Amino acid sequence: MKEVVIGIDIGGTNTVYGIVDKQGNCLIDGNIATTDYHKVGAFIDALHQHIETSLQQLPGIVLRGIGVGAPNGNYYNGTIEHPPNLPWKGVINLIKLFKEHFDVPCYVTNDANAAAMGEMIYGAAKDMKDFVVVTLGTGVGSGFVANGELIYGHDGFGGELGHTIVQQNGRECNCGRKGCLETYASVSGIVRTTHIMLAESSKPSVLRDIPAKEITGKLVTDAARNGDPLALEIFDYTAQWLGFSLANTIAITSPEAIILFGGLAQAGDLLIQPVKQHLQNNLLNIFEGKTKVIPSGLNNNNAAILGASALAWQELKKVHNDKIKLN
Amino acid sequence: MKEVVIGIDIGGTNTVYGIVDKQGNCLIDGNIATTDYHKVGAFIDALHQHIETSLQQLPGIVLRGIGVGAPNGNYYNGTIEHPPNLPWKGVINLIKLFKEHFDVPCYVTNDANAAAMGEMIYGAAKDMKDFVVVTLGTGVGSGFVANGELIYGHDGFGGELGHTIVQQNGRECNCGRKGCLETYASVSGIVRTTHIMLAESSKPSVLRDIPAKEITGKLVTDAARNGDPLALEIFDYTAQWLGFSLANTIAITSPEAIILFGGLAQAGDLLIQPVKQHLQNNLLNIFEGKTKVIPSGLNNNNAAILGASALAWQELKKVHNDKIKLN
Repeated sequence: MKEVVIGIDIGGTNTVYGIVDKQGNCLIDGNIATTDYHKVGAFIDALHQHIETSLQQLPGIVLRGIGVGAPNGNYYNGTIEHPPNLPWKGVINLIKLFKEHFDVPCYVTNDANAAAMGEMIYGAAKDMKDFVVVTLGTGVGSGFVANGELIYGHDGFGGELGHTIVQQNGRECNCGRKGCLETYASVSGIVRTTHIMLAESSKPSVLRDIPAKEITGKLVTDAARNGDPLALEIFDYTAQWLGFSLANTIAITSPEAIILFGGLAQAGDLLIQPVKQHLQNNLLNIFEGKTKVIPSGLNNNNAAILGASALAWQELKKVHNDKIKLN
Repeated sequence: MKEVVIGIDIGGTNTVYGIVDKQGNCLIDGNIATTDYHKVGAFIDALHQHIETSLQQLPGIVLRGIGVGAPNGNYYNGTIEHPPNLPWKGVINLIKLFKEHFDVPCYVTNDANAAAMGEMIYGAAKDMKDFVVVTLGTGVGSGFVANGELIYGHDGFGGELGHTIVQQNGRECNCGRKGCLETYASVSGIVRTTHIMLAESSKPSVLRDIPAKEITGKLVTDAARNGDPLALEIFDYTAQWLGFSLANTIAITSPEAIILFGGLAQAGDLLIQPVKQHLQNNLLNIFEGKTKVIPSGLNNNNAAILGASALAWQELKKVHNDKIKLN
C-alpha cells in the first residue's frame, strides 16, 4: 500500500490538484476552473468528484491527508478569509467543507506558505531551517521559515512581504495603500514599470511596437532575453526594489537562502543576477556573502501541488511525532 | 537548595551582573566598568572575582548556568564578533573564556535577543509565542520570537531591525550605509532630529536655551512631558519612522505584541501613542487592531540582567527536556 496525500492549489482562475507520495511524485493531477463556481459549495462538490475519479485510477494507495494552498488561506482557522481574487466573499471554512467529503485530516495555508513547505520537503530548501520563499506572480507573496517552522504569526497571516512598503507615497496598491513591494516586483509591477519607462526613456525597444494593453511580463522577459536594452533596464529597476527589500528582510530573519518562485522568477538569471547586485548594495556588512539567492527547486508544472502536499506531509509528521520519514 | 543562574549584560561603558532565581528575583547584583579593561582576559578575570564574591554572600544556592547578553553576541558560536563599541576587537570566544572560571553551561546572545527572552520568561510577553522586542537605546536593536523560539537566523545574527533601511539615501549610519531605522528612532536619532528641527522650525522651545552639544534624549523627553510644542513634534517625527517600520515588521512576522524597551521607551505614552497612530496609518488592513504596542514588563533597573538570566533558564529548560518549570 502506497501512502499518498492530495495537494490542492486554489487559484483565481484555475484550481489544480494532485495525488502525491512522500517522495514528491505526483501520481496523477487534474484541474477545474475556479471561476465556473459562484458558490463555494458547488466548487467543493465538483472538486471532490474530480479527485474521486483520480483516486479510483490509482489502486493500492491509502489516502493520509489533504493540503490546500489558497490566497488568504489561514492555517490556524482552516479558512480562506476575504480573498480579493476568488469568486466567494467573506470567511470560507474550507476544512469544514472538505470534511463533508473526505475522512482524512485537512490543512490549509496561503499559497506562498505552501510554496515554502514545498521547497523545504521536496525543493531548493531541503535540510534548511532558515529560509524565505518569495513568490513573484501577479502579486508578491512570501513564506518565512525560521528554526524549521513556518512563521504564521499569532493570527496565521505572517509572511506578507509583498505588502511591506518600500517607497512611501509610491505606486498605488490594490490593498489601498501606496508603495508596497508588490507594486514594483510582481508581474503586474514589471508591466507598470514598462509603461513608465517607455514614456520616460528614449532607448530603442521592441516593446515600442506592442500596443500598451498587450504588454505582459512574458513579453518583457523575452525582450530582455534577446538583449533589448530597455527591457534589461526594466529588469534592473525591478531588481532594485526587490534587492532593497530582500536586504531588509535578511536583517530581520537572516535566512540561509532566499528562493524566488513563480511567474517572474522564471526569468532566471535575468532577474536573479541584478537582484543579487542590488541586494549587496543595500546589505549590512555582517550579512555579506552569506545568504544565497536561488530559483525554486520544484518542477514548475506542479510546484503549487507539491507545496500543498508538502504542507499535508509536514503536518502529519507533527501529529505522528516525527514517525513519518520524508524524502 | 535554591537554583540560580548568573545573568550578565556586557555594555560599552558598564557590565552588570546578577544572581537570579527561576522566579526572576535578582538576589544580588554588581557591576564593573567595561572600559577599564583593554584586554578581554583581564576583564573576564575581574568579572569572575566580583561574581565569586557575590556568590559567597548567598549560602544555600546551587549555580546552574550563565547567560550573557552582549553587543554582536552570537548564540551559535558563543562569541562576541567585531563589536563596534567594546574595547576588544575581532572575534572573542566568550564561552571558552567563561569555561576557564565556571563549571556550568554558558550561553551568549546579543542584548536585544536577551531582552526578548527576559520579556518572555519574566515580563510583558509571558505566554506569548509570537512577539517582537525593540530596544531603543543609543542604537536600535530587536529580538524576534516566532513559534516560541528566537529567530537567530542561519548565522545567529537575525533581528537587526535597527539596520533595516527606512529611507533610501537617508541619514548616515555608523554601519556605513544610509537611512537605517536606528538613525531616526534611537536616542542618538532623536538628538539628531532635535538639531534639525531647532534649525528648521520657528516654534518656541525650551530646547533653544540648551547648547547644541548638551542636548540629550532625556532633555527632549522632559521638554515633551512638560508640553513643549517642538519637543512634541520631535517625538511625533520619531514615531513616524518607528510606526512605519513596525507596520512593515507586522506584515512579516505578524506578532501578538511589539514591546518597546530601553532608554527612549522610558518616555512611555509620549512615544507609544504617536507610534500607534503612525503604525495604524501604514498597516495592511488584515492586521488592523491586532498587534499590541506595549512597554517592557521588566523592572528597568535590572532588565538587562533578567534578560541574560532568562536566556540561561530557557536554554537549560531545552537541555533538560522541559523538566525545569519557569515562573
